[in-house]
Amino acid sequence: MTIAETMLAQAKAARAAARFLRTLDTESKNAALAAIADRLERSRGKIQEANAQDVAAAKEAGYPAALVDRLSLTPARFDAMVRGVREVAALPDPVGETIKRTVRPNGLSIEKTREPLGVIAVIFESRPNVGVDTAALCLKTSNAIILRGGKEAARSNAVLAAALSEALAESAGPRAADAVQFVSVPGHEAVRELVRLPEWIDVVIPRGGERLIRAVTEASLIPVLKHYKGVCHVYVDESADLDMALEITANAKAQRPSACNAAECLLVHRAVAGEFLPRVREWAAGAGVTLHEDGQDFSREFLALEMNVATVDSLDGAIDHINTWGSHHSDAIVTASDAAAERFLRDVDSAAVYRNASTRFTDGAEFGMGAEIGISTDKLHARGPMGLEELTTYKYRVSGDGQCRG
Amino acid sequence: MTIAETMLAQAKAARAAARFLRTLDTESKNAALAAIADRLERSRGKIQEANAQDVAAAKEAGYPAALVDRLSLTPARFDAMVRGVREVAALPDPVGETIKRTVRPNGLSIEKTREPLGVIAVIFESRPNVGVDTAALCLKTSNAIILRGGKEAARSNAVLAAALSEALAESAGPRAADAVQFVSVPGHEAVRELVRLPEWIDVVIPRGGERLIRAVTEASLIPVLKHYKGVCHVYVDESADLDMALEITANAKAQRPSACNAAECLLVHRAVAGEFLPRVREWAAGAGVTLHEDGQDFSREFLALEMNVATVDSLDGAIDHINTWGSHHSDAIVTASDAAAERFLRDVDSAAVYRNASTRFTDGAEFGMGAEIGISTDKLHARGPMGLEELTTYKYRVSGDGQCRG
Repeated sequence: MTIAETMLAQAKAARAAARFLRTLDTESKNAALAAIADRLERSRGKIQEANAQDVAAAKEAGYPAALVDRLSLTPARFDAMVRGVREVAALPDPVGETIKRTVRPNGLSIEKTREPLGVIAVIFESRPNVGVDTAALCLKTSNAIILRGGKEAARSNAVLAAALSEALAESAGPRAADAVQFVSVPGHEAVRELVRLPEWIDVVIPRGGERLIRAVTEASLIPVLKHYKGVCHVYVDESADLDMALEITANAKAQRPSACNAAECLLVHRAVAGEFLPRVREWAAGAGVTLHEDGQDFSREFLALEMNVATVDSLDGAIDHINTWGSHHSDAIVTASDAAAERFLRDVDSAAVYRNASTRFTDGAEFGMGAEIGISTDKLHARGPMGLEELTTYKYRVSGDGQCRG
Repeated sequence: MTIAETMLAQAKAARAAARFLRTLDTESKNAALAAIADRLERSRGKIQEANAQDVAAAKEAGYPAALVDRLSLTPARFDAMVRGVREVAALPDPVGETIKRTVRPNGLSIEKTREPLGVIAVIFESRPNVGVDTAALCLKTSNAIILRGGKEAARSNAVLAAALSEALAESAGPRAADAVQFVSVPGHEAVRELVRLPEWIDVVIPRGGERLIRAVTEASLIPVLKHYKGVCHVYVDESADLDMALEITANAKAQRPSACNAAECLLVHRAVAGEFLPRVREWAAGAGVTLHEDGQDFSREFLALEMNVATVDSLDGAIDHINTWGSHHSDAIVTASDAAAERFLRDVDSAAVYRNASTRFTDGAEFGMGAEIGISTDKLHARGPMGLEELTTYKYRVSGDGQCRG
């Protein structure tokens, strides 16, 4: 088989498995998730052995330390991965839920119900736990998943794939086995072929760095749920409590600088800049944060202890700056003025907008979704943290007693 | 300016106008819609004169009669167009609505609110009223719109464009003028450039035949809301009331065969085929409907008084047939069995699924949405008839009193 044929065969098998998943009730799906968690625990030795080989090979190949770290399935990460599967089982099942019901004057009853998307392809980089995390979310929502991991994690992913697929088949029957598939064909061509099957795959979710996400989005004929980057802002308004402003700035920038919801740019109203900026400089010096007060590339995502700083003349100036240079991810205003806060929350065109809180809260768990498959800065379908509901679509179920259109 | 530069300038102006629209309240938007309706009425003579020139030129160029008919803005169609604008003004405004509100244990209040998409490009064919209809829906939802009509309607669209833009500027101020723009650059290149501006345009909606929709979708780097075609089914189950089945078949096929929600294929359970098919043949002969009982190309959309017919061995066979050959638009079961109906409604993977009713009801007005910008057979964002809500996205507005992430 050519690579294209292999991808098509996997996608068709996933579609058939998705149709079968749709017939399972919540209890059966939860049982399958529990079986997967059990199986992962029983296979821990084999999985960690394969992972150790991946890690050793990556070190030998001279991969950067950060990649080797992400690749490594430490005992704590293994535990968290298994716990994650059990937590997804415990979440409410959105599939089949009635979103809206209307009865029309002609007696037709129209029910809008939540339905699985169908087949989801997840393309990720080094972290092997991403495959298990996303598979659990997809199974819970009756979606089949096709996983493509980084080549550096090939051994880990092969063992994880076998564990998932076997546990599924044992728990839910052989027709469920193809509901979780890994793509083992090496090379970029496999991904390019995979994302060109819009009849068989409903959504592509790339998880990784901006380069991976851009490459997938440009090649894909299938809709992609994604965010490229997080260029998040903290705007300190003229009426801000400056103690609070400093705390929020420090948290948004430095609590976890590698996160997409960390702030990359501090905007300060001119009226308070004279008082506030010296305090920011003092904090930055102590926290090891480099401030770029010359403001050169405002669209830059540092993902590090660096931050752009700019002074603005007005609330409007801050909103314009954010809408122009930001990435529509998460942006905060610190203010004591209700009017300023309301203007900011309405007019900043981002997935999450904050009043007197840190941008770091943009996260499925922090938002109370229980789990997260990613964060979207797109406007169609899903915006912000994506949980179980965002892995569903809807349909209209219409019931009548013979109604015809006049 | 090159075509690419012209398109970019229009898109940027639309983005700026969209930001301005977001600051208007519902009353101002409704006043602008009323001003547009008034202006259209006052300009009726000029518009109909331009339209008469388009119609005359199309006839002279030998365009097909169906196209000339669609192009023609008859007095009745003109009235309906103006009435449509006033009806949109009377609908509730979804923008700003709170979809969900939660307060997290740390005191953060998270409000999920409905927001405009931003800038919408609508690419349509001959019918000039589509520009006005879609502009009204976009304005109501605070979205700017860029319209590209067929070249055969260029004179009509130029006059309509001027009327809309002037009425908007007079009613809502000059910053609103660019919220409705027509693309007047001729040729396909303009469309190709337009759909390659994902930073400035949020959604593309193609309205017209399958060829137009495919061409736009393939060229676009912007998400497209669409349906290619409607290959809709009526399945007559073994327990069906055959009188009802015949009425629904006749209505779904023949009440308006050119509509996308008209049925193209009749599936009959083997157990009732002997009794039901002769009645279908009799009806078809009387109604001038050609039945294709040899079932050759089951994915064909006739849009005419023609229909495929097939016998299936079971409910499962019908569901498989529909999921394999259908277009995921609208499909109906006629049955007296609750169990069969529930299986069909759950397992047929279509935007609208019907029990004992005609597929012809898939329509924004029939579903109670008040208006419709199109019908989607995609699964992301919007599925089925798309009304005002489907022209919105959401954002998370988070309010705190200094919360930082621990």
